Amino acid sequence: MVSEAEKNLVVGIDVGGTGTKIGIVDASGNILARDESIKTPEYKDFDGFVDAMNSVVQRLIAEVGAEGRVRGIGIGAPNANYYAGTIENAPNLPWKGVLQLCEVFSAKAGVPVFATNDANAAAIGEMKYGAAKGMKNFIVITLGTGVGSGIVINGQLVYGCDGFAGELGHVTMVRGKDGRKCGCGGRGCLETYCSATGVARTAKEILKNDKSPSVLRGKKNITSYDVYLAAKAGDKIGKEIFKQTGTMLGEALADFIKFSSPEAIILFGGLTKSGKYILDPVKKAVDKNVMPIFKGKAQILISKLKDSDAAILGASALAWE
Amino acid sequence: MVSEAEKNLVVGIDVGGTGTKIGIVDASGNILARDESIKTPEYKDFDGFVDAMNSVVQRLIAEVGAEGRVRGIGIGAPNANYYAGTIENAPNLPWKGVLQLCEVFSAKAGVPVFATNDANAAAIGEMKYGAAKGMKNFIVITLGTGVGSGIVINGQLVYGCDGFAGELGHVTMVRGKDGRKCGCGGRGCLETYCSATGVARTAKEILKNDKSPSVLRGKKNITSYDVYLAAKAGDKIGKEIFKQTGTMLGEALADFIKFSSPEAIILFGGLTKSGKYILDPVKKAVDKNVMPIFKGKAQILISKLKDSDAAILGASALAWE
Repeated sequence: MVSEAEKNLVVGIDVGGTGTKIGIVDASGNILARDESIKTPEYKDFDGFVDAMNSVVQRLIAEVGAEGRVRGIGIGAPNANYYAGTIENAPNLPWKGVLQLCEVFSAKAGVPVFATNDANAAAIGEMKYGAAKGMKNFIVITLGTGVGSGIVINGQLVYGCDGFAGELGHVTMVRGKDGRKCGCGGRGCLETYCSATGVARTAKEILKNDKSPSVLRGKKNITSYDVYLAAKAGDKIGKEIFKQTGTMLGEALADFIKFSSPEAIILFGGLTKSGKYILDPVKKAVDKNVMPIFKGKAQILISKLKDSDAAILGASALAWE
Repeated sequence: MVSEAEKNLVVGIDVGGTGTKIGIVDASGNILARDESIKTPEYKDFDGFVDAMNSVVQRLIAEVGAEGRVRGIGIGAPNANYYAGTIENAPNLPWKGVLQLCEVFSAKAGVPVFATNDANAAAIGEMKYGAAKGMKNFIVITLGTGVGSGIVINGQLVYGCDGFAGELGHVTMVRGKDGRKCGCGGRGCLETYCSATGVARTAKEILKNDKSPSVLRGKKNITSYDVYLAAKAGDKIGKEIFKQTGTMLGEALADFIKFSSPEAIILFGGLTKSGKYILDPVKKAVDKNVMPIFKGKAQILISKLKDSDAAILGASALAWE
C-alpha cells in the first residue's frame, strides 16, 4: 500500500485541436517523461481518445518506474469545465456536445482526474512554477489563435457560478457595427484584435490604408512573427501594427485592473515572442487608462514558462490541489 | 467578563460627505438604535470627528443596555481601504491625505474597528441580509452620485492586491475624445453616463438633439426621479433617457459577467427607484452582449435592502467577519 505522501508525481495533459501532449511531472515542475504522439483529430470516437491517452499515461508511468506514485491527472482542454469535469461544445475538437472527460478517464486510470480550460491551466502553472509564484492576485492572458484568460483572486482560480468565468477575450473593445465580427457571435471582442488572427486582420487593414513601403506588403497569411521580424528591421507598418494591437490590449488590461486590482498581469503565448514591440505599447496604454490610485501597481509581465512545457505543467498543477 | 459568544451586537457606521449615520445592529439585521445627527463637514479636525462618532456610539450602547455586548464597529466610507484601515484622499470629505481611521477609533472605543468603501459595504450587506443571501459569486453596482461596485467571488469580497479592487464605475465605455470627462481624470467612464449626474448629462444632450415636446424641457437640475416621473407619464424623451442609460449599463454588466460569471448582479441606489424603466433596457443589453454560454445565467436584481438601513447594515456586517 502506497501512502498519500509517497504519491509525489502528477500527470499533466494538454488537449489541443491538433495534438495532445502528456507528461509525468514532479513537485518541482520537472517533466520526467513526455509524449506528444497523439493526434487529436484522428479519434472520431471520444472513448477511443480517452483509451489512447490512458495507454500513453500507463506507458510513461512504467518508463519512469512511477507505479503507485501518481496522485492524479490534470488536463487543460478547450471549453473544459472544472466544476463538471466536462468538455462542453468545443468548436475545435472532433466530439460534439457535453463529454464526461474526468469521470470516464478516472474510471480507466484509477486516479482522480481534473480538467479546466487552457487559460486557467496556464494561470495555475504560473502560480505554481512561473512568474506568479507567491502571488495571490493576478491575471494570465493567453494570446494565441484566440485570447483567453485565467484569473486568480485571493489565491484561488476564479471559476464563477458555472465554471466559465474568465472569458476576457470577449470583452467588447469596439462597440456597434464597426466592431469586428467574432466567433462567439458578438462584435468588437478583444480577441478579434489581439489574437494571432486579430494581428493578421490589423496588418491587412493597415497595409490597405497606409501606402508606405513595407516588407509585409504582398505577403499572404501574415503571422505575428512576420510582423515582429518586420518591426525589428525598422519597418514602419510592422511597428504600427504592434502599436495598435498593444494599445488596445493595454486599454483592456486597464479595465481588468479596475476590476480585481491584481499584482501582475502575465501575458502568455505566441504574440509575447515579439517582446518590447508588443509590451511597450501595452504598458503605455495601461498607464494612460488606469486611475491615479492604480498607476504603477500592476506589473505587466511576459510568462517565464518554456512554451513547450507550459501547457503540460499548467495542467499538471491542477492535480496537486 | 463577557464571553465572545455574548458579544452579539455590532455597530454600523455610514460616513457620507454630508451626514454620518450610526446604528447598533443585531445578528438578524435589526437596527436597535440609530443616530443621524453628525454633519460630517462641521468637523474640520479628523480627531474631533472620531470623538463625535465615539460619543454617539457610547450613548447608543447605553440606550439599548448593550454594554460589553458589542463585538466591533464596521464603517463604510468613501475611499476607505480595508487592508490599511484608512481613508485615503477622499475628495468629498473635509480631511486630506491618509487618515488612520480604524486605529484611532479603536483606541477610543475599545473594540475592533473595520472599514471599507461604501460599495463594498453594500455588497457585504446584501450577502448577509439582502438579495445575495447564500450566494458565493455576485456583484453589487451602486448607482448614486457616482457608480461604485462591490465584487464577491468564492464567498469573499474582492479587495485586490492593495484594497482598491472593484472600481467598475471607471471602466471605459466610450473610448477616445468623444468620451465624457470623468472626475477620475479619465474619459468615457461608466460613471459619467450611468450615475445620477450622468443621467442629468444624458437628459441635457437628448433634449438638445431631439426637439420632441417633453415635460423635462426647461427644467433645471434634472434628477433621475424627474426622468422616472416623465417616463411613467409616457414622455418619449424620458423613456429615451432610460433606454440609453440602461443600454450602456447592460453593456458594461455583460463585460463584468465575462470576468467573474456571477450568479447575480444587484443594482443599488437612487437610479433603481425607476424600476422597470431602467431594468428592462439593462436586461435587454446584457442578454444581447453576453456569449451564448452566459445567456440567462446571471440574474439582474434590484437591492431589497431598505435605503435608509442599507448603508448602516452593510457597514455593520464588516464587524461580524
